[in-house]
Amino acid sequence: TDPPHSFFSLSPSSLSVDKESVQRQIDELSTFSDTPAPSVTRVLYSEKDVLARRYIKKLMEQAGLSVREDAVGNIFGQWSGSEPALAAVATGSHIDAIPYSGKYDGVVGVLGAVEAINLLKRSGFQPKRSLEVIMFTSEEPTRFGIGCLGSRLLSGSETLANALKETVDGQNISFFGAAKFAGYNIHEEHLSNVFLKKGSYFAFLELHIEQGPVLEDEGVSIGIVTAIAAPASINVEFEGNGGHAGAVLMPARNDAGLAAAELALAVEKHVLDSGSIDTVGTVGILELHPGAINSIPSKSHLEIDTRDIDEKRRNSVIEKIHQSAIDIAKNRRVKLSEFQIINQDPPALSEKSIINAMEVAAQHLNLSHKLMISRAYHDSLFMARISPMGMIFIPCYKGFSHKPEEYASIDDIANGVKVLALTLAKLSLATYCGAA
Amino acid sequence: TDPPHSFFSLSPSSLSVDKESVQRQIDELSTFSDTPAPSVTRVLYSEKDVLARRYIKKLMEQAGLSVREDAVGNIFGQWSGSEPALAAVATGSHIDAIPYSGKYDGVVGVLGAVEAINLLKRSGFQPKRSLEVIMFTSEEPTRFGIGCLGSRLLSGSETLANALKETVDGQNISFFGAAKFAGYNIHEEHLSNVFLKKGSYFAFLELHIEQGPVLEDEGVSIGIVTAIAAPASINVEFEGNGGHAGAVLMPARNDAGLAAAELALAVEKHVLDSGSIDTVGTVGILELHPGAINSIPSKSHLEIDTRDIDEKRRNSVIEKIHQSAIDIAKNRRVKLSEFQIINQDPPALSEKSIINAMEVAAQHLNLSHKLMISRAYHDSLFMARISPMGMIFIPCYKGFSHKPEEYASIDDIANGVKVLALTLAKLSLATYCGAA
Ligand SMILES: [Mn+2]
Ligand SMILES: [Mn+2]
Ligand SMILES: [Mn+2]
Ligand SMILES: [Mn+2]
Repeated sequence: TDPPHSFFSLSPSSLSVDKESVQRQIDELSTFSDTPAPSVTRVLYSEKDVLARRYIKKLMEQAGLSVREDAVGNIFGQWSGSEPALAAVATGSHIDAIPYSGKYDGVVGVLGAVEAINLLKRSGFQPKRSLEVIMFTSEEPTRFGIGCLGSRLLSGSETLANALKETVDGQNISFFGAAKFAGYNIHEEHLSNVFLKKGSYFAFLELHIEQGPVLEDEGVSIGIVTAIAAPASINVEFEGNGGHAGAVLMPARNDAGLAAAELALAVEKHVLDSGSIDTVGTVGILELHPGAINSIPSKSHLEIDTRDIDEKRRNSVIEKIHQSAIDIAKNRRVKLSEFQIINQDPPALSEKSIINAMEVAAQHLNLSHKLMISRAYHDSLFMARISPMGMIFIPCYKGFSHKPEEYASIDDIANGVKVLALTLAKLSLATYCGAA
Repeated sequence: TDPPHSFFSLSPSSLSVDKESVQRQIDELSTFSDTPAPSVTRVLYSEKDVLARRYIKKLMEQAGLSVREDAVGNIFGQWSGSEPALAAVATGSHIDAIPYSGKYDGVVGVLGAVEAINLLKRSGFQPKRSLEVIMFTSEEPTRFGIGCLGSRLLSGSETLANALKETVDGQNISFFGAAKFAGYNIHEEHLSNVFLKKGSYFAFLELHIEQGPVLEDEGVSIGIVTAIAAPASINVEFEGNGGHAGAVLMPARNDAGLAAAELALAVEKHVLDSGSIDTVGTVGILELHPGAINSIPSKSHLEIDTRDIDEKRRNSVIEKIHQSAIDIAKNRRVKLSEFQIINQDPPALSEKSIINAMEVAAQHLNLSHKLMISRAYHDSLFMARISPMGMIFIPCYKGFSHKPEEYASIDDIANGVKVLALTLAKLSLATYCGAA
């Protein structure tokens, strides 16, 4: 397993990250937001998303990468290797941000990837396999309720390609209409052009903040992800008769809002009953119609997220939630007008040889590291369907994410970039996945 | 108690309501809406509200009334009596409509009042005291969270006049800014000009759909209101740490959304525990922040409405809700960042002599009638603070209100208009309230 000479030539001291530039880029990118700083809100195909995409493409060009975009706006920046016929090694993440979130989630893995390329170029490294930076379209489900839209499509999801033809956002704007606004004139038949064949990439890597407190608590610099928890999301709707909040007496009511409140608490109960710390469940969206103080809710809409590293255990929680929804509807005489499992993805495992390459890189850089599970999902979950996959985590402040307080120090980011760069270099020289 | 000749000259057969016109007016008014038919949404000072106000003023002018508006847009149409120095007899209601509601709530009492005037004119009646039709500004709390804004101000609420200086809507538009959009350029010091002195009116009457099922169920044509239930509204906010729905494990959470769900169910419990059918409580608004499927709610906002005909019992429910909010916040380690009682009004009693005049009118018209309580509040609740008050209810379909299915038949509306007209006539001839 001796690495070839050109890999070891990357001595830790020769690998210097331009921290100032990376921090400036993070700060500049965060200004493309629909809510005031320190919060960031950058929603798929919005004006701010378009500006941010332009910013990323410019950085890729400045790094000397040749840039292309696919039909839905996944952006690829390639550094041609000396053997361009071989499958490339890819890395990347997303830059969309849910409402009122922070500036590091996803962003670190896109700007960090470009900086890893810059760093390898500065160090004089020449890749054999091409290296590719990917910025994925809509990792967050904010606008169309579909998480990892870009990578899911890259992984060849026919289901998604078909669903997108009918998909609309909360303002009833179609996916195609929104894309057109952002400059992507998608024809239905172009969607399958986005699909990548299995084997298109030799390996896929993603650098990301941990979004949990473990690395910070334990003072460890690098997390090496061995598996990504399996997420599922469910849309639920209850309907009752509504009516005037003063005039309809309590026994005559069938309040869709109270049904939703009961189900939210039932989700928590079933998750806790699983007995495993790894089971989580969240009601992040709960909306009442008509939403007036003097009107009994006639409709309620919930969106439930539940995840586990054990797919079977997670699916059993979903079944219990479904049973509760049925029971609540019956007891409260409301109609369960929707119980739709939007997605119910299997967990993904990192490739053994990539885990190994990341460990070697961290050791080479003398950085403390540990194997861990990703409880958040990432584009890597879908890239794993078409490519060997690995993820690098760095510590973030108190594990905060999806809120303005999200923070990662530039030193921790630089450590992540170096591990990424070394791993990319190592894999770009590898003959087959499993060798180094 | 013999009524004067000019009252008895109004024989039932001479009192014919122009049902076709009234129905057409109801239908026309319902088209000024921000949501599609059959729903109606007409929010204070919106473009549609401005158009609807113009429509009402035109109808008043066509009825020969002299029209004036006060600073906040309460609209008054006067028919001068033969003794204009005497306090006038007034009647009216509102035309604003909460989101996705119906076309009869309030509207019947405004269009019905104008038709009562037309009918009295057609019959040759000449009032002694002037008769006045009032269209109140914002009976519904939709936009600024303040119910009966216009009548509350007419009743001399200094508290409201002061609060309005700081009041903003959900989009952070100030009350004054919204009013300006609608053409009302209000100066702070003009607000107290809206106040009416006690005794400004000899009597105030309001015609309204029941918004409950009693009259329809029992086949009774006219409800004569003896008291209006006392409403209270409360704003609550919980705050937690939020975070990523995948990454933050269950024991580390303090979910502001689940705190809200628990409080909504606690409201129901305390209301049911009161032991009286007359106690009601509703959570009509429950909002989560940031409102993303993969984000733990870091903030929740509830608006609670609770009412009773017994003020003390209702206030005890409010105390229990407050205690629950405190307990839930403690157990869930969230912050109870707001528990604000927005209003906590006392119930209002109808004037004995006006009840009597309404009963006489119904008998004279040979209409079945019954004494009843209003569980919904109305502008009459506030007019009762400055004037003797009475209310006339008519049946409505299944008791539906605040939703598109709200309906009252034109025959029932015509019955209500006739009782209103006769009562207005009777009171306009009365020397002091209590005589006929
Ligand atoms: Mn995210
Ligand atoms: Mn992310
Ligand atoms: Mn109403
Ligand atoms: Mn009303």
